Amino acid sequence: MARWEPDSRRRLEEAALALYGEQGFDNTSVAEIAERAGLTERTFFRHFADKREVLFSGAGALQELFVSAVAGAPDSATPLEAVAGALAAAGAVLQQRGHYPRQRQSIIAASAELRERELIKLATLAAALADALRKRGVKDPAAGLVAEIAIAVFKTAFARWVESDDGPDLPQIMQESLEELKVLAGGAS
Amino acid sequence: MARWEPDSRRRLEEAALALYGEQGFDNTSVAEIAERAGLTERTFFRHFADKREVLFSGAGALQELFVSAVAGAPDSATPLEAVAGALAAAGAVLQQRGHYPRQRQSIIAASAELRERELIKLATLAAALADALRKRGVKDPAAGLVAEIAIAVFKTAFARWVESDDGPDLPQIMQESLEELKVLAGGAS
Repeated sequence: MARWEPDSRRRLEEAALALYGEQGFDNTSVAEIAERAGLTERTFFRHFADKREVLFSGAGALQELFVSAVAGAPDSATPLEAVAGALAAAGAVLQQRGHYPRQRQSIIAASAELRERELIKLATLAAALADALRKRGVKDPAAGLVAEIAIAVFKTAFARWVESDDGPDLPQIMQESLEELKVLAGGAS
Repeated sequence: MARWEPDSRRRLEEAALALYGEQGFDNTSVAEIAERAGLTERTFFRHFADKREVLFSGAGALQELFVSAVAGAPDSATPLEAVAGALAAAGAVLQQRGHYPRQRQSIIAASAELRERELIKLATLAAALADALRKRGVKDPAAGLVAEIAIAVFKTAFARWVESDDGPDLPQIMQESLEELKVLAGGAS
Protein backbone atom coordinates (compact mmCIF):
# COMPACT_ATOMS: atom_id res chain seq x y z
CA MET A 1 0.00 0.00 0.00
CA ALA A 2 2.66 2.47 1.10
CA ARG A 3 4.62 2.10 -2.13
CA TRP A 4 1.52 3.16 -4.05
CA GLU A 5 1.27 6.52 -2.34
CA PRO A 6 3.70 8.58 -4.45
CA ASP A 7 2.31 7.03 -7.60
CA SER A 8 -1.30 7.81 -6.72
CA ARG A 9 -0.44 11.47 -6.14
CA ARG A 10 1.18 11.70 -9.56
CA ARG A 11 -1.75 9.86 -11.17
CA LEU A 12 -4.24 12.25 -9.56
CA GLU A 13 -2.23 15.26 -10.79
CA GLU A 14 -2.10 13.89 -14.31
CA ALA A 15 -5.81 13.02 -14.34
CA ALA A 16 -6.74 16.46 -12.97
CA LEU A 17 -4.63 18.33 -15.51
CA ALA A 18 -5.98 16.27 -18.38
CA LEU A 19 -9.58 16.87 -17.31
CA TYR A 20 -9.08 20.59 -16.61
CA GLY A 21 -7.60 20.91 -20.08
CA GLU A 22 -10.33 18.91 -21.79
CA GLN A 23 -13.46 20.26 -20.10
CA GLY A 24 -12.32 23.23 -18.02
CA PHE A 25 -11.48 23.60 -14.32
CA ASP A 26 -15.00 24.69 -13.32
CA ASN A 27 -16.64 21.72 -15.03
CA THR A 28 -14.44 19.10 -13.41
CA SER A 29 -15.31 17.37 -10.13
CA VAL A 30 -13.08 15.55 -7.67
CA ALA A 31 -15.12 12.41 -8.39
CA GLU A 32 -14.17 12.63 -12.07
CA ILE A 33 -10.50 13.16 -11.26
CA ALA A 34 -10.45 10.15 -8.95
CA GLU A 35 -12.27 8.01 -11.52
CA ARG A 36 -9.88 8.99 -14.33
CA ALA A 37 -6.92 8.14 -12.08
CA GLY A 38 -8.51 4.79 -11.13
CA LEU A 39 -8.56 5.83 -7.46
CA THR A 40 -11.16 6.79 -4.86
CA GLU A 41 -12.23 10.29 -3.80
CA ARG A 42 -10.92 9.40 -0.34
CA THR A 43 -7.47 8.91 -1.81
CA PHE A 44 -7.76 12.27 -3.57
CA PHE A 45 -8.48 14.03 -0.29
CA ARG A 46 -5.55 12.29 1.38
CA HIS A 47 -3.32 14.20 -1.07
CA PHE A 48 -5.16 17.47 -1.79
CA ALA A 49 -7.52 19.71 0.16
CA ASP A 50 -9.57 20.44 -2.95
CA LYS A 51 -9.39 20.40 -6.74
CA ARG A 52 -7.69 23.81 -6.80
CA GLU A 53 -4.81 22.61 -4.63
CA VAL A 54 -3.76 20.10 -7.29
CA LEU A 55 -2.52 23.13 -9.22
CA PHE A 56 -0.96 25.02 -6.29
CA SER A 57 0.55 22.32 -4.11
CA GLY A 58 3.97 23.02 -5.65
CA ALA A 59 3.98 26.68 -4.57
CA GLY A 60 5.44 25.91 -1.16
CA ALA A 61 8.36 23.98 -2.63
CA LEU A 62 9.03 26.75 -5.16
CA GLN A 63 9.05 29.31 -2.36
CA GLU A 64 11.48 27.21 -0.29
CA LEU A 65 13.73 26.94 -3.33
CA PHE A 66 13.74 30.72 -3.84
CA VAL A 67 14.32 31.44 -0.16
CA SER A 68 17.12 28.90 0.28
CA ALA A 69 18.85 30.11 -2.89
CA VAL A 70 18.78 33.71 -1.59
CA ALA A 71 20.00 32.56 1.84
CA GLY A 72 22.76 30.47 0.26
CA ALA A 73 24.11 33.18 -2.05
CA PRO A 74 27.70 34.24 -1.36
CA ASP A 75 28.14 37.04 1.20
CA SER A 76 29.62 39.17 -1.55
CA ALA A 77 26.50 38.91 -3.73
CA THR A 78 24.48 42.09 -4.26
CA PRO A 79 20.72 41.83 -3.55
CA LEU A 80 20.02 41.47 -7.27
CA GLU A 81 22.73 38.81 -7.65
CA ALA A 82 21.17 36.88 -4.77
CA VAL A 83 17.75 36.86 -6.43
CA ALA A 84 19.33 36.15 -9.83
CA GLY A 85 20.69 32.91 -8.36
CA ALA A 86 17.24 32.08 -7.01
CA LEU A 87 15.65 32.74 -10.41
CA ALA A 88 18.19 30.48 -12.10
CA ALA A 89 17.51 27.70 -9.58
CA ALA A 90 13.72 28.02 -9.95
CA GLY A 91 14.05 28.15 -13.73
CA ALA A 92 16.07 24.94 -13.77
CA VAL A 93 13.51 23.09 -11.63
CA LEU A 94 10.56 24.26 -13.74
CA GLN A 95 12.44 23.43 -16.95
CA GLN A 96 12.91 19.86 -15.72
CA ARG A 97 9.17 19.47 -15.25
CA GLY A 98 8.79 19.45 -19.02
CA HIS A 99 5.36 20.21 -20.37
CA TYR A 100 3.65 20.34 -16.96
CA PRO A 101 4.20 24.06 -16.13
CA ARG A 102 2.93 25.08 -19.58
CA GLN A 103 -0.13 22.86 -19.29
CA ARG A 104 -0.80 24.21 -15.80
CA GLN A 105 -0.41 27.79 -17.02
CA SER A 106 -2.97 27.41 -19.80
CA ILE A 107 -5.48 26.02 -17.29
CA ILE A 108 -4.85 28.93 -14.90
CA ALA A 109 -5.12 31.50 -17.70
CA ALA A 110 -8.62 30.19 -18.53
CA SER A 111 -10.09 30.74 -15.05
CA ALA A 112 -10.50 34.04 -13.16
CA GLU A 113 -10.54 32.18 -9.85
CA LEU A 114 -7.25 30.44 -10.64
CA ARG A 115 -5.61 33.63 -11.93
CA GLU A 116 -6.49 35.31 -8.63
CA ARG A 117 -5.06 32.39 -6.70
CA GLU A 118 -1.85 32.62 -8.72
CA LEU A 119 -1.55 36.35 -7.95
CA ILE A 120 -1.90 35.61 -4.25
CA LYS A 121 0.78 32.91 -4.41
CA LEU A 122 3.15 35.29 -6.21
CA ALA A 123 2.50 38.02 -3.63
CA THR A 124 3.29 35.51 -0.88
CA LEU A 125 6.46 34.54 -2.74
CA ALA A 126 7.49 38.21 -3.01
CA ALA A 127 7.00 38.67 0.74
CA ALA A 128 9.08 35.56 1.49
CA LEU A 129 11.84 36.77 -0.85
CA ALA A 130 11.89 40.19 0.83
CA ASP A 131 12.23 38.48 4.21
CA ALA A 132 15.08 36.31 2.91
CA LEU A 133 16.85 39.46 1.68
CA ARG A 134 16.35 41.20 5.05
CA LYS A 135 17.98 38.20 6.73
CA ARG A 136 21.02 38.84 4.50
CA GLY A 137 21.12 42.37 5.91
CA VAL A 138 19.44 44.12 2.98
CA LYS A 139 17.55 47.13 4.33
CA ASP A 140 14.12 48.36 3.36
CA PRO A 141 12.93 49.67 0.98
CA ALA A 142 15.62 47.88 -1.09
CA ALA A 143 14.59 44.41 0.19
CA GLY A 144 10.97 44.89 -0.83
CA LEU A 145 11.86 46.49 -4.13
CA VAL A 146 14.34 43.79 -5.19
CA ALA A 147 11.83 41.08 -4.20
CA GLU A 148 9.12 42.70 -6.35
CA ILE A 149 11.57 43.13 -9.23
CA ALA A 150 12.52 39.45 -8.96
CA ILE A 151 8.85 38.48 -9.26
CA ALA A 152 8.45 40.86 -12.22
CA VAL A 153 11.40 39.17 -13.97
CA PHE A 154 10.08 35.73 -13.06
CA LYS A 155 6.59 36.46 -14.45
CA THR A 156 7.94 37.99 -17.65
CA ALA A 157 10.44 35.21 -18.28
CA PHE A 158 7.93 32.50 -17.48
CA ALA A 159 5.36 34.02 -19.86
CA ARG A 160 7.97 34.10 -22.64
CA TRP A 161 8.95 30.51 -21.98
CA VAL A 162 5.32 29.33 -21.98
CA GLU A 163 4.70 31.03 -25.32
CA SER A 164 7.22 29.02 -27.31
CA ASP A 165 7.72 25.32 -26.89
CA ASP A 166 10.94 25.23 -28.88
CA GLY A 167 12.57 28.42 -27.58
CA PRO A 168 15.48 28.76 -25.16
CA ASP A 169 15.44 27.04 -21.76
CA LEU A 170 13.79 28.86 -18.86
CA PRO A 171 17.04 29.54 -16.93
CA GLN A 172 18.45 31.20 -20.06
CA ILE A 173 15.29 33.31 -20.52
CA MET A 174 15.51 34.29 -16.83
CA GLN A 175 19.07 35.45 -17.42
CA GLU A 176 18.06 37.38 -20.54
CA SER A 177 15.20 39.06 -18.69
CA LEU A 178 17.57 40.13 -15.92
CA GLU A 179 19.96 41.56 -18.51
CA GLU A 180 17.04 43.36 -20.12
CA LEU A 181 16.04 44.77 -16.74
CA LYS A 182 19.52 46.24 -16.34
CA VAL A 183 19.40 47.80 -19.80
CA LEU A 184 15.90 49.19 -19.25
CA ALA A 185 16.70 50.50 -15.77
CA GLY A 186 19.84 52.15 -17.13
CA GLY A 187 17.82 53.80 -19.89
CA ALA A 188 16.17 56.48 -17.76
CA SER A 189 18.07 59.69 -17.12
CA MET B 1 -31.68 66.94 -6.30
CA ALA B 2 -29.01 66.85 -8.98
CA ARG B 3 -26.70 69.13 -7.03
CA TRP B 4 -26.77 66.71 -4.10
CA GLU B 5 -25.38 63.82 -6.12
CA PRO B 6 -21.63 64.53 -5.88
CA ASP B 7 -22.00 65.33 -2.22
CA SER B 8 -23.86 62.12 -1.41
CA ARG B 9 -21.12 60.07 -3.07
CA ARG B 10 -18.47 61.76 -0.97
CA ARG B 11 -20.59 61.37 2.20
CA LEU B 12 -21.05 57.66 1.49
CA GLU B 13 -17.30 57.21 1.00
CA GLU B 14 -16.49 59.00 4.22
CA ALA B 15 -19.12 57.06 6.17
CA ALA B 16 -17.90 53.73 4.73
CA LEU B 17 -14.24 54.45 5.52
CA ALA B 18 -15.05 55.58 9.03
CA LEU B 19 -17.11 52.44 9.72
CA TYR B 20 -14.58 50.06 8.13
CA GLY B 21 -11.90 51.63 10.31
CA GLU B 22 -13.99 51.48 13.48
CA GLN B 23 -15.56 48.04 13.26
CA GLY B 24 -13.88 46.32 10.31
CA PHE B 25 -14.90 45.82 6.69
CA ASP B 26 -16.55 42.43 7.28
CA ASN B 27 -18.69 43.73 10.13
CA THR B 28 -20.07 46.71 8.24
CA SER B 29 -23.29 46.59 6.21
CA VAL B 30 -24.49 48.86 3.42
CA ALA B 31 -27.45 49.78 5.66
CA GLU B 32 -25.05 51.09 8.32
CA ILE B 33 -23.05 53.06 5.75
CA ALA B 34 -26.19 54.69 4.37
CA GLU B 35 -27.44 55.47 7.87
CA ARG B 36 -24.14 57.04 8.94
CA ALA B 37 -24.19 59.18 5.78
CA GLY B 38 -27.79 60.19 6.41
CA LEU B 39 -28.85 58.65 3.09
CA THR B 40 -30.84 55.62 1.91
CA GLU B 41 -29.51 52.25 0.79
CA ARG B 42 -31.03 53.01 -2.59
CA THR B 43 -28.80 56.05 -2.90
CA PHE B 44 -25.79 53.90 -1.93
CA PHE B 45 -26.52 51.47 -4.75
CA ARG B 46 -26.89 54.32 -7.23
CA HIS B 47 -23.22 55.09 -6.58
CA PHE B 48 -21.62 51.72 -5.77
CA ALA B 49 -22.30 48.12 -6.80
CA ASP B 50 -21.44 46.86 -3.29
CA LYS B 51 -19.57 47.84 -0.14
CA ARG B 52 -16.26 46.66 -1.59
CA GLU B 53 -16.54 49.00 -4.56
CA VAL B 54 -16.44 52.03 -2.27
CA LEU B 55 -12.74 51.22 -1.84
CA PHE B 56 -11.98 50.34 -5.48
CA SER B 57 -14.06 52.79 -7.50
CA GLY B 58 -10.99 55.00 -7.96
CA ALA B 59 -8.95 52.24 -9.64
CA GLY B 60 -10.32 53.04 -13.09
CA ALA B 61 -9.37 56.71 -12.81
CA LEU B 62 -5.88 55.79 -11.56
CA GLN B 63 -5.44 53.44 -14.50
CA GLU B 64 -6.55 56.11 -16.98
CA LEU B 65 -4.07 58.51 -15.40
CA PHE B 66 -1.21 56.01 -15.77
CA VAL B 67 -2.14 55.13 -19.34
CA SER B 68 -2.58 58.73 -20.51
CA ALA B 69 0.72 59.75 -18.88
CA VAL B 70 2.53 56.94 -20.72
CA ALA B 71 0.77 57.84 -23.98
CA GLY B 72 1.58 61.52 -23.52
CA ALA B 73 5.29 61.09 -22.74
CA PRO B 74 7.64 62.68 -25.31
CA ASP B 75 8.59 60.50 -28.27
CA SER B 76 12.18 60.63 -27.09
CA ALA B 77 11.34 59.12 -23.68
CA THR B 78 12.69 55.64 -22.94
CA PRO B 79 10.13 53.09 -21.70
CA LEU B 80 11.28 53.64 -18.11
CA GLU B 81 11.10 57.42 -18.51
CA ALA B 82 7.55 57.07 -19.82
CA VAL B 83 6.45 55.08 -16.77
CA ALA B 84 8.45 57.39 -14.47
CA GLY B 85 6.26 60.26 -15.69
CA ALA B 86 3.15 58.16 -15.02
CA LEU B 87 4.37 57.33 -11.51
CA ALA B 88 5.00 61.02 -10.80
CA ALA B 89 1.51 61.93 -12.04
CA ALA B 90 -0.16 59.18 -9.98
CA GLY B 91 1.91 60.13 -6.95
CA ALA B 92 0.81 63.74 -7.20
CA VAL B 93 -2.86 62.79 -7.42
CA LEU B 94 -2.67 60.40 -4.46
CA GLN B 95 -0.71 62.96 -2.44
CA GLN B 96 -3.49 65.49 -2.96
CA ARG B 97 -6.04 63.10 -1.50
CA GLY B 98 -4.44 63.66 1.89
CA HIS B 99 -5.14 61.05 4.52
CA TYR B 100 -7.63 59.06 2.40
CA PRO B 101 -5.16 56.69 0.66
CA ARG B 102 -3.50 55.83 4.00
CA GLN B 103 -6.86 55.20 5.67
CA ARG B 104 -7.95 53.07 2.72
CA GLN B 105 -4.68 51.11 2.82
CA SER B 106 -5.01 50.21 6.50
CA ILE B 107 -8.53 48.91 5.84
CA ILE B 108 -7.32 46.81 2.90
CA ALA B 109 -4.37 45.45 4.88
CA ALA B 110 -6.79 44.14 7.53
CA SER B 111 -8.86 41.98 5.14
CA ALA B 112 -7.72 39.00 3.04
CA GLU B 113 -10.61 39.55 0.62
CA LEU B 114 -9.63 43.20 0.09
CA ARG B 115 -5.91 42.39 -0.25
CA GLU B 116 -6.81 39.91 -3.01
CA ARG B 117 -8.97 42.49 -4.73
CA GLU B 118 -6.08 44.98 -4.58
CA LEU B 119 -3.72 42.43 -6.16
CA ILE B 120 -6.17 41.93 -9.01
CA LYS B 121 -6.51 45.68 -9.58
CA LEU B 122 -2.71 46.04 -9.66
CA ALA B 123 -2.41 43.16 -12.14
CA THR B 124 -5.02 44.85 -14.34
CA LEU B 125 -3.08 48.10 -14.06
CA ALA B 126 0.14 46.33 -15.08
CA ALA B 127 -1.59 44.87 -18.15
CA ALA B 128 -2.96 48.31 -19.12
CA LEU B 129 0.50 49.87 -18.69
CA ALA B 130 2.09 47.18 -20.87
CA ASP B 131 -0.52 47.88 -23.57
CA ALA B 132 0.15 51.63 -23.36
CA LEU B 133 3.88 50.93 -23.83
CA ARG B 134 3.20 48.68 -26.83
CA LYS B 135 1.22 51.51 -28.39
CA ARG B 136 4.37 53.62 -28.08
CA GLY B 137 6.19 50.96 -30.08
CA VAL B 138 7.89 49.21 -27.15
CA LYS B 139 8.29 45.55 -28.05
CA ASP B 140 7.72 42.52 -25.85
CA PRO B 141 9.12 41.31 -23.53
CA ALA B 142 10.33 44.85 -22.66
CA ALA B 143 6.77 46.28 -22.52
CA GLY B 144 5.60 43.65 -20.02
CA LEU B 145 8.79 43.84 -17.97
CA VAL B 146 8.77 47.66 -17.67
CA ALA B 147 5.07 47.60 -16.74
CA GLU B 148 5.73 45.06 -13.98
CA ILE B 149 8.73 47.06 -12.77
CA ALA B 150 6.60 50.20 -12.66
CA ILE B 151 4.06 48.41 -10.46
CA ALA B 152 6.90 47.13 -8.25
CA VAL B 153 8.18 50.70 -7.80
CA PHE B 154 4.65 51.98 -7.22
CA LYS B 155 3.92 49.36 -4.53
CA THR B 156 7.23 49.92 -2.77
CA ALA B 157 6.97 53.71 -2.83
CA PHE B 158 3.34 53.68 -1.75
CA ALA B 159 4.13 51.36 1.18
CA ARG B 160 6.95 53.70 2.29
CA TRP B 161 4.68 56.72 2.04
CA VAL B 162 1.87 55.05 4.00
CA GLU B 163 4.30 54.16 6.79
CA SER B 164 5.24 57.71 7.71
CA ASP B 165 2.76 60.53 7.89
CA ASP B 166 5.42 63.22 8.07
CA GLY B 167 7.89 61.87 5.53
CA PRO B 168 8.56 63.12 1.98
CA ASP B 169 5.73 63.56 -0.53
CA LEU B 170 4.70 60.54 -2.60
CA PRO B 171 6.03 61.89 -5.94
CA GLN B 172 9.43 62.38 -4.29
CA ILE B 173 9.38 58.84 -2.85
CA MET B 174 8.40 57.51 -6.31
CA GLN B 175 11.43 59.29 -7.75
CA GLU B 176 13.71 57.93 -4.99
CA SER B 177 12.42 54.39 -5.57
CA LEU B 178 13.12 54.70 -9.30
CA GLU B 179 16.65 55.91 -8.53
CA GLU B 180 17.05 52.99 -6.14
CA LEU B 181 15.87 50.62 -8.86
CA LYS B 182 18.59 51.90 -11.16
CA VAL B 183 21.25 51.48 -8.49
CA LEU B 184 20.04 47.98 -7.58
CA ALA B 185 19.70 46.90 -11.20
CA GLY B 186 23.19 48.22 -11.89
CA GLY B 187 24.53 46.27 -8.92
CA ALA B 188 24.48 42.81 -10.53
CA SER B 189 27.37 41.78 -12.66
